[in-house]
Amino acid sequence: MQDALDAARQAAASGEVPIGAALVRGDEVLAVAANRTRMPPDPTGHAEIRVLRAAAEKLGSERLTGCDLYVTLEPCAMCAGAISHARIARLYYAASDPKGGAVEHGARVFEQAQCLHRPEIYTGLGEAEAGELLREFFRSRR
Amino acid sequence: MQDALDAARQAAASGEVPIGAALVRGDEVLAVAANRTRMPPDPTGHAEIRVLRAAAEKLGSERLTGCDLYVTLEPCAMCAGAISHARIARLYYAASDPKGGAVEHGARVFEQAQCLHRPEIYTGLGEAEAGELLREFFRSRR
Repeated sequence: MQDALDAARQAAASGEVPIGAALVRGDEVLAVAANRTRMPPDPTGHAEIRVLRAAAEKLGSERLTGCDLYVTLEPCAMCAGAISHARIARLYYAASDPKGGAVEHGARVFEQAQCLHRPEIYTGLGEAEAGELLREFFRSRR
Repeated sequence: MQDALDAARQAAASGEVPIGAALVRGDEVLAVAANRTRMPPDPTGHAEIRVLRAAAEKLGSERLTGCDLYVTLEPCAMCAGAISHARIARLYYAASDPKGGAVEHGARVFEQAQCLHRPEIYTGLGEAEAGELLREFFRSRR
């Protein structure tokens, strides 16, 4: 989670929303990515999507079986769907997101009967730091 | 929708699930893409995600305000989330997908209170052809 938090911090420095993700297999960190939707412009450029794509390219497989994803904020519907498609084994997220999250809020993607793969889910690790990064970012933009 | 169906047909020819999408602004087709998750391996490589990314790059904006998306199958949770993030004005999809769709089935992403942008939705255009392409593809793989 520390890699994900570091990536989030770097995102804020370049004017992107500070959310970071790390993709891990056993002891190996396969990829780390931050939110990047502005430069280059990409509506799908959330940290989770970017880290999944990087790891799939690295492993040469669209299925990341046995891999774990760490992310600093509860995934949205887009990212939860991608996590399911990628067959992620364990999902760790730091802060919950009542406004945009789709794991324990809203669309609750993994709880749908049609969801073909549901990761094990762990929450709260690094929550205070992840939340403070986001609050500080949006405070400074007001 | 014809461009989307043509892209779907090409996807099948290269062993990818035959789903295609086209992104349009007014009379201009900004981008056309097909499902491509195997080569290169990308768990997020659905036609919708690929066409949204291509159009955002072309227009230099992560928001595709005023643009319409045509796709041959009801979008999944990942793609519905991306469509909302991209602020697509109108979504046209050909066939419904009770197994994986998240517009009129399952997560019903656009019906959530937290969904920040909901496109106008039109269904059924090209439905027979889109469904037949998918049925034929999966029949030939059994």
